Amino acid sequence: MLSSTRLSHSIHSLRSLSTLQLVYSEHGDPSKVIRPSTVSLPSSVPCGQVRVSWLAAPINPADINQIQGVYPVKPPLPAVGGNEGVGRIEEVGSDVSSFKKGDLVIPARSGLGTWRKMGDHSVDHVWPIDNRFSIEAGATLQVNPSTAYRMLKDFEDLKEGDTVIQNGANSGVGRSVMQICKIRGLKCVSVVRSRDTGMDELREELSELGSTTVVTEEEMASKMRGKVKARLALNCVGGRSSLFLAGAVAKRGTMVTYGGMSKQPLSIPTAAFIFNDISLRGFWMSRWYDEGNTQERTVMYRDLADWFASGRMKTPPFEKIPMDDATAALEKAQTKFDKKMLFV
Amino acid sequence: MLSSTRLSHSIHSLRSLSTLQLVYSEHGDPSKVIRPSTVSLPSSVPCGQVRVSWLAAPINPADINQIQGVYPVKPPLPAVGGNEGVGRIEEVGSDVSSFKKGDLVIPARSGLGTWRKMGDHSVDHVWPIDNRFSIEAGATLQVNPSTAYRMLKDFEDLKEGDTVIQNGANSGVGRSVMQICKIRGLKCVSVVRSRDTGMDELREELSELGSTTVVTEEEMASKMRGKVKARLALNCVGGRSSLFLAGAVAKRGTMVTYGGMSKQPLSIPTAAFIFNDISLRGFWMSRWYDEGNTQERTVMYRDLADWFASGRMKTPPFEKIPMDDATAALEKAQTKFDKKMLFV
Repeated sequence: MLSSTRLSHSIHSLRSLSTLQLVYSEHGDPSKVIRPSTVSLPSSVPCGQVRVSWLAAPINPADINQIQGVYPVKPPLPAVGGNEGVGRIEEVGSDVSSFKKGDLVIPARSGLGTWRKMGDHSVDHVWPIDNRFSIEAGATLQVNPSTAYRMLKDFEDLKEGDTVIQNGANSGVGRSVMQICKIRGLKCVSVVRSRDTGMDELREELSELGSTTVVTEEEMASKMRGKVKARLALNCVGGRSSLFLAGAVAKRGTMVTYGGMSKQPLSIPTAAFIFNDISLRGFWMSRWYDEGNTQERTVMYRDLADWFASGRMKTPPFEKIPMDDATAALEKAQTKFDKKMLFV
Repeated sequence: MLSSTRLSHSIHSLRSLSTLQLVYSEHGDPSKVIRPSTVSLPSSVPCGQVRVSWLAAPINPADINQIQGVYPVKPPLPAVGGNEGVGRIEEVGSDVSSFKKGDLVIPARSGLGTWRKMGDHSVDHVWPIDNRFSIEAGATLQVNPSTAYRMLKDFEDLKEGDTVIQNGANSGVGRSVMQICKIRGLKCVSVVRSRDTGMDELREELSELGSTTVVTEEEMASKMRGKVKARLALNCVGGRSSLFLAGAVAKRGTMVTYGGMSKQPLSIPTAAFIFNDISLRGFWMSRWYDEGNTQERTVMYRDLADWFASGRMKTPPFEKIPMDDATAALEKAQTKFDKKMLFV
């Protein structure tokens, strides 16, 4: 028995124990500091762990910032890049009963390092998801649709017909927000930056996804002024954009900030606090995961699985790039914003 | 009986039924639109009302704004100016048992019109206060010390040793805040605008009142940066000042805005929301009164009566002006800010 196991190990190691991962050993420009690295996995999966083949993993802005060293979460170096992705269980440790071969998983928390072809992970570090998720939807489930889902659920008790307003609406989260608004019967006012060409197409596209109104920031400051009374405002831009957004929040409503694309501080009218009694809060998906929230997480992924499976939610456009072309992908991720890069 | 009442009425009307009030019939510069007006009160106090001789009433910035027509609360015109003050019950309607001659009262809500020598008011429109209050403390109880008291109580569960930070600290509310902080064992970081002369004296004065640290806005932006972790920040300035204040709020702490002296929108760093999870709220004393809060109001005035009576709280410096000099007082209130104008 012992020698047979040894033999199987050594055959295994000859065949498949070496795998590619994208590693950085210092902070800096991702396209310069990220290097492909070949590592060996033990021939059999250690106790308490599962072997995951990572099927797809996006390049998110937070991944870029983390490698640059400007993100508040800094894994110890060297580190494998990537915080989001979907994998399939290939094998489980001898004492593991909570996962089986073929299950789809995503990272339980950020910081796992998903830019790798295969990895062994503690069972606590991965989270099972419904096998109905497509690879694309599963690989990008954890951040954008989940952020949208939680912000529409955790801050205001929104009822059918209530109004939500959001800026940066043409973002991944923004597109998820409008789709969930449509599913829940909420009105969604989507504020976008005005553009010289393709504005009509953008309005049409975002309306199709679920926005009841699509307006530019300029329109918010002029003809739409005083017209919107939203129970909830979602801000990922800051600067002047947040000024108009806060002015559109109804009495006692809430504005949630989850990003700062303009790199400007939020600008908020004093009167909105004093006379309209609005609250400003922040949301960070990583912290929500870190806090546990096990049961709510299960419910959320079940809802999202239903919505993606029924076609009521769709993933944004991707550009799929093999992990071997990491440098090109990382350069594109920082210069082209119309499609999200997805390592496959 | 009937004829005897009539006789008494007519004697009374000859002696004392005419009284002075400061009235405005249109919005505009208070020193121009406010006019002294003599009105007659009925010889006996109507049922359900009390006759109040108003002993002192301040000129607050909100009073000025209300007369200018730029405040969100606009009483129907013509209106008597003034929202705060202290009066003494002179006589009560025949069916009134809740007040008696000699009781001190303040307005139950804003909008009563306190710039008058005497008035008949519905029993619901005045609120009894402890006779231990001095005329000055009673006349200015309803806004500044109450605002400070509530903000230190209703937003964060502050424990002895916790830190509060405030800007505009040299204001009426600011001075109340530091005194209540001292009474409650809270650390109070007071941010003031830097001044060319008298800075040392100001530091000393505000420290004496209860500030544990007095810093200028410039010092907050430089040597104090990252040094303060306050559970609660109180903002009445806005603009850049709110940027430094928000940066000094501890994780999950709260910043409350109750004024906007700079007339600039608040500026708030995005990271404070996302990574520090701070909340921004607003506070408006008038709304709190409008909401009822009867029991909490009684407790608050009892605490403040104790504190003023024991000398642990003091009123700010006043300039006392007879109501007949209204124009001069209203001009001074808009140009001199070192002393509050108090009609007596």
